[in-house]
Amino acid sequence: MITYNFTNTGSDSLYEYLYKCIKNDILQGNIKPGEKLPSKRSFAKNLGISVITVENAYEQLIAEGYIYSMPKRGFYVTDFKKAVEIEKKNITKEMIPLTSGDSGYLADFSSNQTQSELFPFTIWTKMVREVLNENQMQLMTNPPCGGIFFLRKAIATYLKEFRGMTVLPEQIIVGAGTEYLYGLLIQLFGKDKVYAVENPGYRKIPQIYKSWQVPCQYIDMDNDGVKVSELEEKKADILHISPSHHYPTGIVMPISRRYELLGWASRGENRYIIEDDYDSELRLSGQPIPTLQSIDVSDKVIYMNTFTKTLSSTVRISYMVLPRQLLDEFYKKLSFYSCTVSNFEQYTLAKFIQEGYFEKHINRLRNYYHSKRDALITAIRNSRLNDFVTISGEEAGVHFLMKIETSQPEEKLIQSAGTQSIKMAPLSGYYHVPGEAPDNVYIMNYSSIKIDDIKEIVHRLNLCI
Amino acid sequence: MITYNFTNTGSDSLYEYLYKCIKNDILQGNIKPGEKLPSKRSFAKNLGISVITVENAYEQLIAEGYIYSMPKRGFYVTDFKKAVEIEKKNITKEMIPLTSGDSGYLADFSSNQTQSELFPFTIWTKMVREVLNENQMQLMTNPPCGGIFFLRKAIATYLKEFRGMTVLPEQIIVGAGTEYLYGLLIQLFGKDKVYAVENPGYRKIPQIYKSWQVPCQYIDMDNDGVKVSELEEKKADILHISPSHHYPTGIVMPISRRYELLGWASRGENRYIIEDDYDSELRLSGQPIPTLQSIDVSDKVIYMNTFTKTLSSTVRISYMVLPRQLLDEFYKKLSFYSCTVSNFEQYTLAKFIQEGYFEKHINRLRNYYHSKRDALITAIRNSRLNDFVTISGEEAGVHFLMKIETSQPEEKLIQSAGTQSIKMAPLSGYYHVPGEAPDNVYIMNYSSIKIDDIKEIVHRLNLCI
Repeated sequence: MITYNFTNTGSDSLYEYLYKCIKNDILQGNIKPGEKLPSKRSFAKNLGISVITVENAYEQLIAEGYIYSMPKRGFYVTDFKKAVEIEKKNITKEMIPLTSGDSGYLADFSSNQTQSELFPFTIWTKMVREVLNENQMQLMTNPPCGGIFFLRKAIATYLKEFRGMTVLPEQIIVGAGTEYLYGLLIQLFGKDKVYAVENPGYRKIPQIYKSWQVPCQYIDMDNDGVKVSELEEKKADILHISPSHHYPTGIVMPISRRYELLGWASRGENRYIIEDDYDSELRLSGQPIPTLQSIDVSDKVIYMNTFTKTLSSTVRISYMVLPRQLLDEFYKKLSFYSCTVSNFEQYTLAKFIQEGYFEKHINRLRNYYHSKRDALITAIRNSRLNDFVTISGEEAGVHFLMKIETSQPEEKLIQSAGTQSIKMAPLSGYYHVPGEAPDNVYIMNYSSIKIDDIKEIVHRLNLCI
Repeated sequence: MITYNFTNTGSDSLYEYLYKCIKNDILQGNIKPGEKLPSKRSFAKNLGISVITVENAYEQLIAEGYIYSMPKRGFYVTDFKKAVEIEKKNITKEMIPLTSGDSGYLADFSSNQTQSELFPFTIWTKMVREVLNENQMQLMTNPPCGGIFFLRKAIATYLKEFRGMTVLPEQIIVGAGTEYLYGLLIQLFGKDKVYAVENPGYRKIPQIYKSWQVPCQYIDMDNDGVKVSELEEKKADILHISPSHHYPTGIVMPISRRYELLGWASRGENRYIIEDDYDSELRLSGQPIPTLQSIDVSDKVIYMNTFTKTLSSTVRISYMVLPRQLLDEFYKKLSFYSCTVSNFEQYTLAKFIQEGYFEKHINRLRNYYHSKRDALITAIRNSRLNDFVTISGEEAGVHFLMKIETSQPEEKLIQSAGTQSIKMAPLSGYYHVPGEAPDNVYIMNYSSIKIDDIKEIVHRLNLCI
């Protein structure tokens, strides 16, 4: 009879230890398929342990399928064929990004990361604490796919007051980032539609379409935005634009082009426009630009916005406003999905908006970015750089464009900035065909740089040109 | 010259009011395209306001494209064609789900919602508070696509200690729910692969595949799990299974079938197995069943698990463990995506696991569900129901199967349970072709029912049969 030594069971209980010993012997081939195991009683006696211990070990082996029991006959080893042992591939451990964001540059003009000092930690903590205290039942109640009603209501009220938009909470779909919401829209419209993006434009959108293997066309822009003639030529169905503040050029789409695009959309049943209003809250002078959605009478605009710009890039909450005519189809096709934002953050954010803290926070942010932009532009103006650069698109958001007059090739300038610990973001990187971009134009995204570093940053930029 | 009355500007500033008046007149056609607007100076004088007010109003109108300025000549109204006014469709307001979860039944055996009393609010609040105090910098640092290192490390340690799995943090990808992770896998493998699911099985998986319009095959099961011969016949590439505890039948896949499936996977370059280990922590007797991943020598298993079962269905955090051979491709194709779980919840959960609270919570949960299951089964055994029912699959998770011997058609029984405020979940609902399911077998998901209600629930069930 097989026997085991119980002096070294480690932290295992007796039955666990016995189960592992038998399993190991089966796997090693020491106990053969078809072989009969000792009866519980005799095995227990032999090992000097209780019958119940043997029984528990046998039961676990049965549950996992290593042995089976034949009524009144006993326990037998299963005849299973172990798959051929294949040499476990020796994967060379490549550099896999386990951290990001923290780029280590003195200035990273390509980063959208917000600064930790700007996040309203005190108020947020208060909101979290209140929600955890007062809303325990609601926190545990599954929300519908579009998010909790309280948050959708708060967003609808906010859109009414600050963007002049009249929308129902039902039209608002909350999701973990706009990238996720794009995925929902691809599922809504289907993979046979032609998706169109601005060229130049925000690079992630075509990356998402490509990753989902759906047709994607690049639409060239003139000074007013995407060209309508090209939309027709390229047979676009779903168009992505950011009319309030184009990324990266900063173009505000004039009312004439807006109406042209709405006209284009209304001429085709499958045509829709996704209006990405990603940083309209951060317009630094004048009034916010009214949304395309608010002048859309033919129900063709999907409005999209995010809290990742205004709260923190690490808080993943975005939303879209669906036109009413798409609601039925959306809920029919996609309401089986769970909402991707946790209830905890949905309730916290809803409370934050509803109690007026979001508005205050936006005002504070706008002032802060206003000062930072002014400090950066003033520092550039007061330096030797002023003779070489042209600045544009500085009225909104957290970036402007800077054209540098230099005989240096773009690549060389980026490299020498790099040696100064400055990461430059060339406009060419936002073109589908980089060669078509104007040379030496840079996107100066100043959200992550520190005001105190500006003098040093401008000094170093000077050294590069 | 056009003129406006400034006595009723409401909460608008003078320039905002003026801007709105002019815009409105342009939109109404009272000021025609091409028409010249008054000069700033004369307009200001005429209206009795300052030049700067007119200037601000004109600038906003220029920014939005309603007017343009010609140097030394003045301001002109843009000639834009308003899109044809289309009657805004009168959408009948349908029943759109703004709440869910709260089904109002005395017992909803179809619900996976966890009870609010079970969530560790006190400890969670403590973790949140500490993270908000101590990790402000990290909270604001963009994580890589797979999630913060701290959480991935905590999960790797947990998997080592409790599931005997040796994995690197790099292999772990954190996402907002398994549904989202399935989307990532479809993007990784591509839409030309054949995805295969268990029949019967968890319904959401084929829904996701269909929603993404990728080929999906249903693989019939025998008593050990999916049939390998059918996988070959149906040319499956990517197979989804839950070997530790099949939903809804409760089958534990024996070691023989596990090796057969691993063998199947190793015979094709594109073949992979997704091991959905959704509730393995809640095995109520014996040891947890070892994972398929831990015996996979050919690097073909993607392990998937979630905190939505163990913490709360409203906390959206799941993860998958990629085989090493897929890492390069995954990061190359998909690392452009932002992680969908907010840093706040990632750090809170990481701390919760790392400080041992997760383990304690699981033990508490297991004891609780053990008692609830025993109470429910005992109540059934002690009632008249006992003569009519057969219970199976009660060893794990938070559901068991109950076959009811009755001459009533399934539909009628469900209906009469409904009138007793009991929502039954028939097994037939989990079959691709409902007619193939055994009749009058019900999934008794007891996670959302209250122990105090069990007596009444069993009494009412008695009335139905």
